[in-house]
Amino acid sequence: MELLSALSLGELALSFSRVPLFPVFDLSYFIVSIVYLKYEPGAVELSRRHPMASWLCAMLHCFGSYILADLLLGEPVIDYFSNSSSILLASAVWYMIFFCPLDLFYKCVCFLPVKLIFVAMKEVVRVRKIAVGIHHAHHHYHHGWFVMIATGWVKGAGVALMSNLEQLLRGVWKPETNELLHMSFPTKASLYGAILFTLQQSRWLPVSKANLIFLFTMFMVSCKVFLTATHSHASPFDLPESYICPVLFGSAWGGDHHDAHGSAHGSAHGGSMHSALPKSKEELNEGTRKKKTKKAD
Amino acid sequence: MELLSALSLGELALSFSRVPLFPVFDLSYFIVSIVYLKYEPGAVELSRRHPMASWLCAMLHCFGSYILADLLLGEPVIDYFSNSSSILLASAVWYMIFFCPLDLFYKCVCFLPVKLIFVAMKEVVRVRKIAVGIHHAHHHYHHGWFVMIATGWVKGAGVALMSNLEQLLRGVWKPETNELLHMSFPTKASLYGAILFTLQQSRWLPVSKANLIFLFTMFMVSCKVFLTATHSHASPFDLPESYICPVLFGSAWGGDHHDAHGSAHGSAHGGSMHSALPKSKEELNEGTRKKKTKKAD
Amino acid sequence: MELLSALSLGELALSFSRVPLFPVFDLSYFIVSIVYLKYEPGAVELSRRHPMASWLCAMLHCFGSYILADLLLGEPVIDYFSNSSSILLASAVWYMIFFCPLDLFYKCVCFLPVKLIFVAMKEVVRVRKIAVGIHHAHHHYHHGWFVMIATGWVKGAGVALMSNLEQLLRGVWKPETNELLHMSFPTKASLYGAILFTLQQSRWLPVSKANLIFLFTMFMVSCKVFLTATHSHASPFDLPESYICPVLFGSAWGGDHHDAHGSAHGSAHGGSMHSALPKSKEELNEGTRKKKTKKAD
Repeated sequence: MELLSALSLGELALSFSRVPLFPVFDLSYFIVSIVYLKYEPGAVELSRRHPMASWLCAMLHCFGSYILADLLLGEPVIDYFSNSSSILLASAVWYMIFFCPLDLFYKCVCFLPVKLIFVAMKEVVRVRKIAVGIHHAHHHYHHGWFVMIATGWVKGAGVALMSNLEQLLRGVWKPETNELLHMSFPTKASLYGAILFTLQQSRWLPVSKANLIFLFTMFMVSCKVFLTATHSHASPFDLPESYICPVLFGSAWGGDHHDAHGSAHGSAHGGSMHSALPKSKEELNEGTRKKKTKKAD
Repeated sequence: MELLSALSLGELALSFSRVPLFPVFDLSYFIVSIVYLKYEPGAVELSRRHPMASWLCAMLHCFGSYILADLLLGEPVIDYFSNSSSILLASAVWYMIFFCPLDLFYKCVCFLPVKLIFVAMKEVVRVRKIAVGIHHAHHHYHHGWFVMIATGWVKGAGVALMSNLEQLLRGVWKPETNELLHMSFPTKASLYGAILFTLQQSRWLPVSKANLIFLFTMFMVSCKVFLTATHSHASPFDLPESYICPVLFGSAWGGDHHDAHGSAHGSAHGGSMHSALPKSKEELNEGTRKKKTKKAD
Repeated sequence: MELLSALSLGELALSFSRVPLFPVFDLSYFIVSIVYLKYEPGAVELSRRHPMASWLCAMLHCFGSYILADLLLGEPVIDYFSNSSSILLASAVWYMIFFCPLDLFYKCVCFLPVKLIFVAMKEVVRVRKIAVGIHHAHHHYHHGWFVMIATGWVKGAGVALMSNLEQLLRGVWKPETNELLHMSFPTKASLYGAILFTLQQSRWLPVSKANLIFLFTMFMVSCKVFLTATHSHASPFDLPESYICPVLFGSAWGGDHHDAHGSAHGSAHGGSMHSALPKSKEELNEGTRKKKTKKAD
């Protein structure tokens, strides 16, 4: 009985890992990515006044992961743009989302049940991209664990890791924050996924790649659908990180002058590391300085 | 009679497309590019205090198109710098323009009739670079229309597309604008030219490459010389764009909340897309915020 | 007698140029580089709240030179990360410097006599990297003097040349300055060293590579140890530059309007070109503007 279930899971995973992504899954990926672009403040205005910049941002949202991975691995950064059919499909999605009469297309794809399906399909693409990226990096660097993890990560996280550049194209500049300083759930999950797939590729994780793809996809789909449905920005990694990070990176024993008086609440400090503390030290200093200036005035 | 003229045009175009660019045309390209660098506010001061940064900016102005194209096609970004004679020529031009006694060289090349000749010769180089870039991209990606257009575009537009980076080298940072948001005439013409040359390369445009080079060069030379002579920042594309853009990207049927109350003057909105509206939404918001702050004070 | 000393110097230089850098010298390089990262304001805070960003900055500090050189020469920018042992060693150093109990490790390596030894060993690595970089570039471009100089320079100067990007990862943005505008001693020395090694590689400098490595290492070690021991930011190049720069780039004959009234003190102007003038023209203008605003208030 158990053997049968194992067998059927293995077969299911194998056939799942062979489902072609183009065009249906890719389409969902493009739709969700460009919908997120439209959420950005000023994006609609930009598309009206500077369609070329808006289109280029949309392409970065759809293909940023390929551009970054090609840059890392020394391949032409524009390589993926030779897939004219993918570019045309993404361009059509961009046009429909921004310029469809009565905003019909956007309203349809943002209707929550529909959107959840697209979000789920996007995660399928994401996990497959991580797996393919690591396989590709492994082909070039057989023992380059860091190269594999980095390639898988950028393939999964995509445009998020180049958000400063993408904003710059739109004339927006927020240097005080970036994806590394405030990692979103998909970025973090891509990193952990890339580590898992690298372990699998190096045969340190005794599981077949098809099974890992299937299981990690299930995890990502359920998390992302739940987070999207509840409009939540929490992350399932918050809890384990709040235990591990103070131990690894906590300032409980911290001996430097800055934190000397703060050692009493050191662990609380460490626990909030990844949580929503929007102010960096510089900003706080800036704030203090401004207050002082005001008083001086 | 007509056959004869066609024949002679074809022959003229063919011999025109075989004129070597180095050194005379390249020299003109360097002179005009570095004169434009000297126009930038702070450039003279920079050359006195930080000659190394000034020289590097001059090199970007002269060879930015090669750097960008090499980056896109995965070749060494420094590849073109192996042409030592070109670099030495451009360096000599940079030195003469910035450090010539009594500023004689700069005054000579900026004398309008002389400058117009150099501007015309620069456009000859630009069109040839677009054609060569697309031929090169076609060699790598036989059916990569988007790759060809992008390569041709960066070869034609050059440093303009990396203006933010070039400014950063000089210690200037204007994130609220870039060439994509406010395309100049040469950038836009390079884009349209790249599309034309891509169509020609793919045999969708029934014209020989030599003829296309000749005709597009004539168009660019006449436009650029006219614009330079009249100190105009207008563009011959403004009129067709003011008709096409409202239809393609206009917000006449726009259904999103931001533009809901603005649908009445939607087409006027679309028509001014490429015109000189210097304020982005963010700036306007910024302005409002400042006013409010003032009132609060 | 003289022959003997020459022979022994040659042999000493030869065996010195064959000393393996990994792991002892590399370890010193990592320690000094990451200690400099910890000196940056906000770096300790960053390591507590965003360990991932801190680790990535540490990697840039250790391997920035490889990343830049790979980018220039069109190789995978992540290529060096396939040396897992180097990455693990640098990561361990990063962890020890930022998170060691009681800050013991940091205090030990910052104890001046210990630090001077590490600084000296770092310069050994730097000179070797310049020599290897130029050899590598020479292999690709036999007559590309500029390519060789540029590769040697980025190999020697490392993360300094990408400091804006490195700061951006930490959420810090200082566009008004960069390493090109205010070159530190190691950056400048790397440039001059790269020129020397390029001349040697092209057989224009009649000295063996081993000897040049030995002599330039001695120069770098003595300068850097002296500067570190005296906490000085001066540079041994200041004096020759104060003579050469006014002649080459001085504004004594300057004919442009900005400097017309300043020609009397033109040479003083040129002489201070590389010295510690922290204010660029833009900043000065900014200052004036602010004063005016204050008056208006």
